Amino acid sequence: MTEPFRLHPQLAADTDLVTEGPLSRILMMNDARYPWLILVPRRNDLVDYDDLTADEREMLGRECAETSKTLKRLFKANKTNVAMLGNMVPQLHCHVVARFPGDAAWPGPIWGVGQSLPFREDDARDRLSALRADLISAFRHN
Amino acid sequence: MTEPFRLHPQLAADTDLVTEGPLSRILMMNDARYPWLILVPRRNDLVDYDDLTADEREMLGRECAETSKTLKRLFKANKTNVAMLGNMVPQLHCHVVARFPGDAAWPGPIWGVGQSLPFREDDARDRLSALRADLISAFRHN
Repeated sequence: MTEPFRLHPQLAADTDLVTEGPLSRILMMNDARYPWLILVPRRNDLVDYDDLTADEREMLGRECAETSKTLKRLFKANKTNVAMLGNMVPQLHCHVVARFPGDAAWPGPIWGVGQSLPFREDDARDRLSALRADLISAFRHN
Repeated sequence: MTEPFRLHPQLAADTDLVTEGPLSRILMMNDARYPWLILVPRRNDLVDYDDLTADEREMLGRECAETSKTLKRLFKANKTNVAMLGNMVPQLHCHVVARFPGDAAWPGPIWGVGQSLPFREDDARDRLSALRADLISAFRHN
């Protein structure tokens, strides 16, 4: 029997579900300072990037590229950061973040800088809908 | 005629060459605080992860996994960070860094924290030799 996928409680607390990619659960960070997605491969007990198989790396790579392009399309960003850190939350997860000159951490990294700024409920719902529509279309066509 | 590969001068100034991977030039950051490699795909004018083709993503993914395992083997690390930021240096490059509880930035990200600590010349040479030998063997066998 395959164990059901378990999402780390900290990731569950900090995010909302956008959609499921080929490999990963795609989440939106509840932080209005940045357009910020988190991809969590649906395999239990992954910690680091080198724990992935070659096939999983290929799927995650495609998901990172498509989510990066989605953020650029929707938020007119011309730059994204893609990072797997996991020093605080040990479950393997990949940040894909649109960056802008003058954003709250520019040009430094976003992690550990200032306080998160939760979305208003309406704003979160609108943003999740837009992300979901764009990503579902991207995964269908690319 | 194909243009020769150009490494950004800031990356050239901050690193020493370890070896060439299938896609990327593999560099060691001259900072003794962390075992820290930088992979730079040998294609001019790449900026973000989504600029790579699917084949290039596959090669870079393999390089990230092998360099991560090499850092774990040589430095007895049980954790690496893999990140493509590029907010300051616009040429696409991927950081692969071994992390340790208690290191100079733990558990935060390493970028923009404190001052770099250059290697003594002998130490840099020894470390480069060890990295080169392990990585060349890894790329031959995996």
